[in-house]
Amino acid sequence: MSLLVVGSVAFDAIETPFGKTDKIIGGAATYITLSSSYFTKKVNLVAVVGGDFPKEKIDLLEKHGVDTKGLQIKENEKSFFWSGKYHNDMNTRDTLVTELNVLGDFDPIVPDAYQNCEYLMLGNLTPMVQKTVIERLQKRPKLIVMDTMNFWMEVAMDDLLETIKLVDVLSINDEEARQLSGEYSLVKAARKIMAMGPRFLVIKKGEHGALLFNDEQVFFAPALPLEDVFDPTGAGDTFAGGFIGYLAKSDDISFDNMKRAIIYGSAMASLCVEKFGTERLEYLTAAQVDARVQEFVDLVQFEISLV
Amino acid sequence: MSLLVVGSVAFDAIETPFGKTDKIIGGAATYITLSSSYFTKKVNLVAVVGGDFPKEKIDLLEKHGVDTKGLQIKENEKSFFWSGKYHNDMNTRDTLVTELNVLGDFDPIVPDAYQNCEYLMLGNLTPMVQKTVIERLQKRPKLIVMDTMNFWMEVAMDDLLETIKLVDVLSINDEEARQLSGEYSLVKAARKIMAMGPRFLVIKKGEHGALLFNDEQVFFAPALPLEDVFDPTGAGDTFAGGFIGYLAKSDDISFDNMKRAIIYGSAMASLCVEKFGTERLEYLTAAQVDARVQEFVDLVQFEISLV
Repeated sequence: MSLLVVGSVAFDAIETPFGKTDKIIGGAATYITLSSSYFTKKVNLVAVVGGDFPKEKIDLLEKHGVDTKGLQIKENEKSFFWSGKYHNDMNTRDTLVTELNVLGDFDPIVPDAYQNCEYLMLGNLTPMVQKTVIERLQKRPKLIVMDTMNFWMEVAMDDLLETIKLVDVLSINDEEARQLSGEYSLVKAARKIMAMGPRFLVIKKGEHGALLFNDEQVFFAPALPLEDVFDPTGAGDTFAGGFIGYLAKSDDISFDNMKRAIIYGSAMASLCVEKFGTERLEYLTAAQVDARVQEFVDLVQFEISLV
Repeated sequence: MSLLVVGSVAFDAIETPFGKTDKIIGGAATYITLSSSYFTKKVNLVAVVGGDFPKEKIDLLEKHGVDTKGLQIKENEKSFFWSGKYHNDMNTRDTLVTELNVLGDFDPIVPDAYQNCEYLMLGNLTPMVQKTVIERLQKRPKLIVMDTMNFWMEVAMDDLLETIKLVDVLSINDEEARQLSGEYSLVKAARKIMAMGPRFLVIKKGEHGALLFNDEQVFFAPALPLEDVFDPTGAGDTFAGGFIGYLAKSDDISFDNMKRAIIYGSAMASLCVEKFGTERLEYLTAAQVDARVQEFVDLVQFEISLV
């Protein structure tokens, strides 16, 4: 089924205890589309870059089956740029630079060919831009997944709540779930957040895995214990890309299938963090993805016969 | 199979955001024996208390099938006392008072009737006391599990390393695993720690679950997402008690059975933290334990067919 992805396509400069990059490509939609491309080839992208964004990186996306008709190129402007430095624990980071550039007045134009998409993934962006995309679709997609972050809770809470109301799945991290709900217990937080609109909630816990809630069930997927995490940048977006990509491919939004999608998303994220930036996502094989999923199966499966 | 538990039996005074207790019973061996008693009735206790320890609490242990022949009562001395206050996140706490009292010169005398025990659980204690217990057993148990903490890494590292060398399973938390190994990655930490002696390593991550390693496999069990955690005191010991109790009952130390034991331990810990101190562990039914284990099954099981 066709998938529409909206989000940033940008430059990042990253420093981790393992090294430092110059400007490399990044952005939520870059990670999401690359990750989802391993599951479905009908990935449509709505985003904006400046004239400084390298043509060969757009070709790279195209080669992965990403349709870039909806990628606006503003020749005389600069791409969004973020620079950050991770602490030794890799769980916390300092933002060094944020230059909005073309994202400052991003108008998410949806090409006609993208209408009737059945799965919509709203990567982290201004909530009003996310809402505009939903409004511009003539037919409501079968499933709308939205990612966001604490920043919008601080500067645009009302807009955020309006947008959250319109989506099926909200994806945020544990601290954001606590901030949004005012509850420390993630079980209580999930209940409050689902009352705001979404039927499903994904709570990402970084190296501690991810939780999926609906109104009566909860599923937990661990993160894979890794020898080395080189660069956590994009892990959450890569997770989201695997999740929505698997759902779009299987076209089944039952809770049981969402569990599988969470495992595929977790597998993609665990691969992503093994190299800097999008490097690992650029040349994966289906066999490598399956082998990683098998590691998750081995990690958590057990057999208990209860009488 | 018979199980020998060595550890503290003591008083705690606990403050959490949900309330405050006076002196209540606590101590590693109290939680371990109560927890393991739901799996096997051959639980033998070696510990020491003062004359201030209430007779009815010893009766409580006896009623759970715990043999207290090895519980020394020093009539003219006082029991070990610990007091602590948990922060709002429940993951960190301040120790307010530590009075060693009878634990200061604890000589762990093993009654003859306890010889030939097949499972030995060494609760957190001075490493030399743990080692003495191993030396006093005429026949090496089939499995020795040892719990310890960062404090001993700071004040008695050499003794700790000597003792660790003698055990089959070491149980510590994630920060302790990092401190002991000097590695941030838990995968690397596990490899280094197993090279110190133990064939198995359990890394407890509190609300983030637990990992079990041997030299070629790794298993992860989540913690159950709970509405409220009232008091985390004793959760790690309750986990250890469920783990060793299940192993002693099933008398199977294969990795697959250890996975089940980890799930039972996690289930017991999740029950423990729902009330203050040992309260919840005092009156559980087998059906309640099974129902909780079923929640873990529901939480993590998924089906993926890989080609």
